[in-house]
Amino acid sequence: MEEVAKRARLASQNLAGSSEGLRNKALEAFKKHLLEKRALIEEANAQDKAEAEVAVKAGKLSSSLFKRLDVSGAKFDTLLKGIDEILSLPDPIGQVTYANKVAEGLNLYRLTCPIGVLLIIFEARPDAAVQIASLAMKSGNALLLKGGKEAQRSNAALVTAMSAALQDVGLPADCIQGVDTRTEVAELLKQDKYIDLVIPRGSNELVRSIKDASRIPVMGHADGICAVYVDSKADLEKAVKIVVDSKTHYCAACNSMETLLVHEDVCASFLPKLAVALEAKDDVHYKADPKCLPHLPVALSEPVTEDDFDTEFLCHTMAVKAVTSAQEAIDHINSHSSGHTESIVTEDPMIAEAFLSRIDSAGVYHNCSTRFADGFRYGFGAEVGISTNRIHARGPVGLEGLVIHKYRMYGDGHTVTGFAGTTPEHAFVHSPVPGVARVDDIPQAKKART
Amino acid sequence: MEEVAKRARLASQNLAGSSEGLRNKALEAFKKHLLEKRALIEEANAQDKAEAEVAVKAGKLSSSLFKRLDVSGAKFDTLLKGIDEILSLPDPIGQVTYANKVAEGLNLYRLTCPIGVLLIIFEARPDAAVQIASLAMKSGNALLLKGGKEAQRSNAALVTAMSAALQDVGLPADCIQGVDTRTEVAELLKQDKYIDLVIPRGSNELVRSIKDASRIPVMGHADGICAVYVDSKADLEKAVKIVVDSKTHYCAACNSMETLLVHEDVCASFLPKLAVALEAKDDVHYKADPKCLPHLPVALSEPVTEDDFDTEFLCHTMAVKAVTSAQEAIDHINSHSSGHTESIVTEDPMIAEAFLSRIDSAGVYHNCSTRFADGFRYGFGAEVGISTNRIHARGPVGLEGLVIHKYRMYGDGHTVTGFAGTTPEHAFVHSPVPGVARVDDIPQAKKART
Repeated sequence: MEEVAKRARLASQNLAGSSEGLRNKALEAFKKHLLEKRALIEEANAQDKAEAEVAVKAGKLSSSLFKRLDVSGAKFDTLLKGIDEILSLPDPIGQVTYANKVAEGLNLYRLTCPIGVLLIIFEARPDAAVQIASLAMKSGNALLLKGGKEAQRSNAALVTAMSAALQDVGLPADCIQGVDTRTEVAELLKQDKYIDLVIPRGSNELVRSIKDASRIPVMGHADGICAVYVDSKADLEKAVKIVVDSKTHYCAACNSMETLLVHEDVCASFLPKLAVALEAKDDVHYKADPKCLPHLPVALSEPVTEDDFDTEFLCHTMAVKAVTSAQEAIDHINSHSSGHTESIVTEDPMIAEAFLSRIDSAGVYHNCSTRFADGFRYGFGAEVGISTNRIHARGPVGLEGLVIHKYRMYGDGHTVTGFAGTTPEHAFVHSPVPGVARVDDIPQAKKART
Repeated sequence: MEEVAKRARLASQNLAGSSEGLRNKALEAFKKHLLEKRALIEEANAQDKAEAEVAVKAGKLSSSLFKRLDVSGAKFDTLLKGIDEILSLPDPIGQVTYANKVAEGLNLYRLTCPIGVLLIIFEARPDAAVQIASLAMKSGNALLLKGGKEAQRSNAALVTAMSAALQDVGLPADCIQGVDTRTEVAELLKQDKYIDLVIPRGSNELVRSIKDASRIPVMGHADGICAVYVDSKADLEKAVKIVVDSKTHYCAACNSMETLLVHEDVCASFLPKLAVALEAKDDVHYKADPKCLPHLPVALSEPVTEDDFDTEFLCHTMAVKAVTSAQEAIDHINSHSSGHTESIVTEDPMIAEAFLSRIDSAGVYHNCSTRFADGFRYGFGAEVGISTNRIHARGPVGLEGLVIHKYRMYGDGHTVTGFAGTTPEHAFVHSPVPGVARVDDIPQAKKART
């Protein structure tokens, strides 16, 4: 596995010097080769699905996981459309984020560049293999890709098609390498010399086990314990809409609400309205504190425990608590939340501002559903994942989460010694250089290319 | 120690909501309290120095480390001036880096915010305690601070003065907590729930041992193996100046040159010139390959080994190698460099461009000394350290390395459900919102403050 990681590093160094044109050509080639191999891929997928169907019947695989295995028919078309969307995004590489005249004839530029080698571990869904590979190619990163074992044949067929595409455009096939087993992943997690970032996309258990096993930085989220706080100054109609959406629009998602905090002044007026709105939903269950319980349907409620406030239910169960002030809601969230996304419902702008500035989470919302925490809804065009990390990238992550920067300095024989002494040769200027947005705007780079 | 870390987290949440005015007031209070306690601090420092002097005489402490212990007299004045410099920097918090109209009445903003809790571990120099605390305060981060044991009394006196300053302006004293022993540090490295980033400032051994011991992200550099490549198209006068500066301006620094690569066409003309320029320097030593050896002073040279190209000499010894092309130099650097800073000397812009785009290091320079890799020389005003990480921050790191972002969304009862169905209530717009540079430019935030 060290050899695999080393080859990925070499491929990434090759890829880092590539033009936007070449990277986009590779994405076009992905589409071409996937279409050419469509029959083979759908055949591999059919085999995976047949095997999975047996497992579902034997009770060894969930039916929701089975559904996500499919990459045939309309799913295949969506997959190709996804590549087009990534193709249309602006080049994340070569953007100049700092341009400074250090001294006369000495200029400094900070440019975005690929991170290097990514190890991405995802569950079941084979369409994710193509989406992830396309994001990595767009951002110039080499990729080690481990999919779920249920989709092994489908993933292998997809990676084979994309490898052929890479060679077609003159890029090393090692830019995308499939990884088959957990043992191989365990070995790769030790290759911190060659692998720069691990992105696990899947269950909390997956993310935690990887963080425990590796020195390589991990981008991901461990939990999604999101809260909605209904303030005493809330518009209760809005509050009902927002809580219903946050909890039930897709309760298995990390951005769905788990904890509902209600100002004690509105428990009696708000909770019965909410219960009515949720009547039509299946399996709604309230775990509520003594102040809230009397206002909720007896048959659907039980007393809340302290542990419930640290639980990601991922179903129509919610923890409900009354608070005496917005500050109590803020304190509760800052001690129990997983730092994902929280929302306040209030018509008071001062209270909203306090909530938004004091809550320590990746997303802080006023009068809208926590379900908006998503790269597409944020307008990023493509989503790498959602991060609850507090360095590098936080919240929904677009392509910018797959880049870092490097500094270029252009001089003319400049030395640090030349800035010292009684009659220094040079003096620091440190003024911004205007009009340099991309690498080709740097005069020396432009000159070299023409 | 869990309690210490937890208190730091609480303090950080308090600090995160603080205004620029309050944070700057705290910095002013640092100056005031340090001045008031100057006699006490200098007395503590005198005790540390007296003890260290004994250790130096016994050969148990290096004299360079002894020199760096001093915080009295002019050193004390410099320390206060350092606070002024950090005070004058623009607020790194509350900058809006993404402003998007998601839909009618639904706006999204990405704002810079503090990371949270930093654990900073540094060696000897007690003045670093004040510099680090000032950077943390400016960026709204809570700080756990472990200094070298030789400076324990000085550090304690400095931290005591700064804690008093915090209470003076109404901030929790827990914003800055001193940590005394290595055992305590070992315990803190396990508190990944409460500590967000570890920054070790010191030897490679220190950085490596911390990376091995903790799940918390570490920002630092493990090595500084920097190279200069003198191309066949180099101006040899510039090349001599740049190599002499890169190697000898301050050879113990991480940004000094360790490896010299020379195009074989100019070995005979360049190396003797370099040897003459280095004649006046002490302890110059060349470890050179067979093509270079004949052009270097016999008495100062020996054959290079493969290991020498992976060695950080930190003295006037250098590894010297001839290459047949710029591409060979690039490949050599990409396999041996520590990813810190590399420089090419050439008059050919095409070759320079290839070097700058293909080298995989934090700094890539054309015709200037590697010694420019430094936050002050880059124009950042203050330096947190230099990072060879490939996520979050890379290269010299200014205050922006101590911040991350969070997303604010303002709606009016918006739900994700409202965007679906045959007659959706809302439609995605995703257009940039102009004129929002800082948090106070957000209409709702402005309204709440007035």
